[in-house]
Parts: sequence; structure tokens; C-alpha cells
Amino acid sequence: MKLHWSPRSPFVRKVMIVLYEAGIEHQVTCVRTPVAMDKPNLDLMPDNPLSKLPTLVLDDGTAIYDSRVICAYLDGVAGAGLLPAEPRARLIAERRQALGDGFLDTLLLYRQERNKPQERQTPAWLSAFGLKAKAVVAALEKEAPELETTPFDLGLISIGCALSYLDYRFADLPWRDGHPALAAWHLRFNERPSVVRSQPDDAAA
Amino acid sequence: MKLHWSPRSPFVRKVMIVLYEAGIEHQVTCVRTPVAMDKPNLDLMPDNPLSKLPTLVLDDGTAIYDSRVICAYLDGVAGAGLLPAEPRARLIAERRQALGDGFLDTLLLYRQERNKPQERQTPAWLSAFGLKAKAVVAALEKEAPELETTPFDLGLISIGCALSYLDYRFADLPWRDGHPALAAWHLRFNERPSVVRSQPDDAAA
Repeated sequence: MKLHWSPRSPFVRKVMIVLYEAGIEHQVTCVRTPVAMDKPNLDLMPDNPLSKLPTLVLDDGTAIYDSRVICAYLDGVAGAGLLPAEPRARLIAERRQALGDGFLDTLLLYRQERNKPQERQTPAWLSAFGLKAKAVVAALEKEAPELETTPFDLGLISIGCALSYLDYRFADLPWRDGHPALAAWHLRFNERPSVVRSQPDDAAA
Repeated sequence: MKLHWSPRSPFVRKVMIVLYEAGIEHQVTCVRTPVAMDKPNLDLMPDNPLSKLPTLVLDDGTAIYDSRVICAYLDGVAGAGLLPAEPRARLIAERRQALGDGFLDTLLLYRQERNKPQERQTPAWLSAFGLKAKAVVAALEKEAPELETTPFDLGLISIGCALSYLDYRFADLPWRDGHPALAAWHLRFNERPSVVRSQPDDAAA
């Protein structure tokens, strides 16, 4: 299988964590595929017309995306058990994954907006993104006791990757302040070998 | 169940189509919940800190999102069969749903950007969104013969809603030109009773 990959995409990171957890990383060749919101990658678009990462090309040429579809597929192939079978537990895992993914979508837009020259920024967007970020972290702090007792799954992976992305790109936002339970959970998330191995690589081309 | 709803959200529309297809629309109370990118809805955020639609609150108070999680949940509850059980068919349906959803995400941003005063627009974004829209429609035209023969499912619902959103908000983009097979498929999609019933309502408050 071929994975359109980048060393700093948080959605690619979700897939890498699943590969390491499942122990099937050797079945996938990672191909460095640069994408940017203002620069669609024409080489990627035959596989994914949205020009987004991650995109996984199966051995028969079928291309699949997005991270959620890829993670569920790889989990199934490897029987890694990262999506609970029990309906209620699965629903909660899927809702958490949607929260982590949605948070990442918001943070990616937030970063784009912050990096614009001031005269092109939309102040109401910046306020809205900041308010949402605070609300998500506050909601996760309330949920932290359940995060602690949930076996590692796709929901936790997505939430963990989103918080790590906060650390990586929003180091100025002190999200741990007032959220000790979430900070403690994330500390343990960060120590997991699959998470350590998938850290963003600033040295990568 | 309570559905945070709006008459013009294409992601809410996906859920409404599933409800009508499954014949369980009477089990859900729709609550008009206005959201905008620059105006988070503080009443919605206790249920969904991302302030996004659709959000479904189950009878025990559990809130779930996003549209993908809600659609899969409702499909399972009603046994409506909108997610194929056979693994390969399911993977294709999920990939199509990701394409439709990703296309909608792109179109929502495209619309936001177009509606900004010109001095705040990012021209490279507008070009990128336009290029992606063309690439998605071209890819779907190639896939139209398979769309025709696929039993109605969540993948088709998402793609159909995205094309209908093009008609609704991008009437100036002649997406049917050069794409007769896709246009023919969408015509039949539009005739389906669940699709007719879920049309955006410009008269709604």
C-alpha cells in the first residue's frame, strides 16, 4: 500500500499511530506529498481530487480517504481492535474521533487565519476559533476521567493528536492551565510508543 | 431524540435524508439552531463545543456528531441498510461519503471566501477551491456508471447533497457542462422522495 504522507500533518499522524499500534507499518510505503490550502498538489489529485492528506492507495490501485476511513480500514485489516465492537462504546469512540477531527479542522483554519497579514484577517473568525478551542478543552477536561479508563482506541488517538497539535502549532495557548486531568491524560498519551514514533519531524524535507 | 437543525445546512440534510429513508423522522424533534463560522452558538456548545450542525442528542442526554457518526447511528438503529455490510462495498461507500463531505467542507469555505470584501480575500484560496471543485466533478463523472448501479447508500447521499449544494450556492458554476453522466445520475437522485422532502427551505426563519 502507498500512503500519501507528510511529516507534520496531524491527520497523517492518526494513520501512523494506527499502523504502529497494529504492527503493520512495513506493509505501507510512505510517499512525501506536500499539500497546502493555497496550493493543490496535482500529483495527488488523481488519487484524491480534494488534494488532502492522508490518502491511502491499496495494492489494487483503489484510493481511499479521509483519515477516518483509512484508520477504520487498517484497523479492520490488522484486527487491531482500535474501534470497539460493542455498539455503545463504538458510538462514544466515533463521537470522540469526530470531536478530535473537528477540533483539528478548526485549528488548521485558525492557524491559516493567524498567519495572514493583519489586513486580510477576519477578527470575528479569530475570536470564534479561540472560543471553540477553549470550549473543546473544557469539555475534554470534564471527560478526562472516562478517557483514563477507556482502552486505547481511535477516539483517544484523534483527541490526543489534536492536543499534540495544539502544543506543536499553538505553543502560546496555555491549554493545560485549569485542566489538570486532561493534561495528565495527555502526558500518558504522549508516552505511548506509537505516539512517540509518530512525532512531527521538523527536520524532514 | 433532539436534532440541532437548520433548514439550509447540507450536512443536516444528509441526516434528514437518512431519517426519511429509514422512516423514523417522527422519533426526532428538530430544533432550529443557527450557527455561523464567525458566530459560535453558545446554546449549542454544551452539546457540541465545536458549535457545528448537525448534533443529535439521544434520549439519555448523550450528544453525538458529526453527520457521519449520526447517519451511521440512525442507520443502525433503524436497520435501514444505508451502509453496506459487505466490506468492499462498505469501504467504497465510506470513501464516497468522505469525498462528498470533504467537497462540502471545501465549498463552505469557498463560499465564505467569495462573500468577503475583496480586500480580505486570498486569491490563491479562491483559485485552489475552484480547481478542487472542478477535479471532484471530473472524478465523479468518471465514477458515474458505478454510482448508477450502487444501491442507495450513505456514499451516494453525501455526493448527491454536495452536488445539490453546488446548485444551491454556486448556481454560477455550470458543473453539468461536460459531465452528462453525473448530471443524469443527480437528476434521479433529486427525484427521490427523501431528497425532495429535505430540500433547503429559503422561507424558513
